Amino acid sequence: MVAPITAAERATLATALPRWSLVPDRDALHQRWVFSDFNAAFGFITRVALLAEQHQHHPEWSNVWNRVDITLTTHDAGGLSLRDLHLATAIDALTA
Amino acid sequence: MVAPITAAERATLATALPRWSLVPDRDALHQRWVFSDFNAAFGFITRVALLAEQHQHHPEWSNVWNRVDITLTTHDAGGLSLRDLHLATAIDALTA
Amino acid sequence: MVAPITAAERATLATALPRWSLVPDRDALHQRWVFSDFNAAFGFITRVALLAEQHQHHPEWSNVWNRVDITLTTHDAGGLSLRDLHLATAIDALTA
Amino acid sequence: MVAPITAAERATLATALPRWSLVPDRDALHQRWVFSDFNAAFGFITRVALLAEQHQHHPEWSNVWNRVDITLTTHDAGGLSLRDLHLATAIDALTA
Repeated sequence: MVAPITAAERATLATALPRWSLVPDRDALHQRWVFSDFNAAFGFITRVALLAEQHQHHPEWSNVWNRVDITLTTHDAGGLSLRDLHLATAIDALTA
Repeated sequence: MVAPITAAERATLATALPRWSLVPDRDALHQRWVFSDFNAAFGFITRVALLAEQHQHHPEWSNVWNRVDITLTTHDAGGLSLRDLHLATAIDALTA
Repeated sequence: MVAPITAAERATLATALPRWSLVPDRDALHQRWVFSDFNAAFGFITRVALLAEQHQHHPEWSNVWNRVDITLTTHDAGGLSLRDLHLATAIDALTA
Repeated sequence: MVAPITAAERATLATALPRWSLVPDRDALHQRWVFSDFNAAFGFITRVALLAEQHQHHPEWSNVWNRVDITLTTHDAGGLSLRDLHLATAIDALTA
């Protein structure tokens, strides 16, 4: 099992990860990206895949041409854990 | 606009592309793959991305760790076109 | 066989593709990129791979951590062909 | 600095990593792969990139269409370290 985030950590989400939204009906974060085309979208997807393997924490994600949707949650925590916050921060740094 | 597949082409789906299923409520093909881990799944994803760019036809797809779901349809045909059948055949050849 | 570029096309290289250098002892173009880290370098590599598959023309290339070296030439032309100029232009557009 | 491999570790190379060759004039391991086409080669390249980021140890490598050459050495060790042996073992497992 992995520890869920604390109430204090949860209170920082809106300011620390303003680009991510909480998902209705699940304890998870979501962000959507729209790129100029598939080539740009898949370059981003590959960079996120490398981050995921480095963090040993993997997204639920989907792609349709230039659009990428990423949802982060931790199955072993039954919701958000610090792993999600760390990976979300690293993903944001790719397109800072 | 792109031409939808003909009734004759549609009749070949079950024998020509037996690994793909028709999606309920849409005119689209779906297949799921389960790999040993994320590394293997993402190697496959990258190979499909290269095929998609070569075919200039792109899937709707999602990934969760070792699982890859691909849905093929042609927006400009309002459903299945030969583009989907060609890309489906090329994807199948990757894991033949 | 593929046609080599003409003398007129060759005369445009320095202005049309100023980031590329002619390679000594071969009729080929070379460019080096240095990124912030491996993640950024491999995102670029993947985007070039997608372009190559779309163009059906492939680079000779190497990578060491944040550095990417790409050499373009056309074996079937015995040197530079329009395929190299088109792929070089498309690669430049990725980091324009 | 990273410790170089010991004489005992070096003595195991031929049996533990028989697919890799020692490089003349450098303390490094090399292997070449030849795939059916660029698509297959780049799928492999991507899987090795994911391993490299997971190991935080990166190859010197090159690709020409269906051919991939990988050289492993550790700059901070002045030659082979256990990092190279671990990454080489992980790469071999991809095509076992």
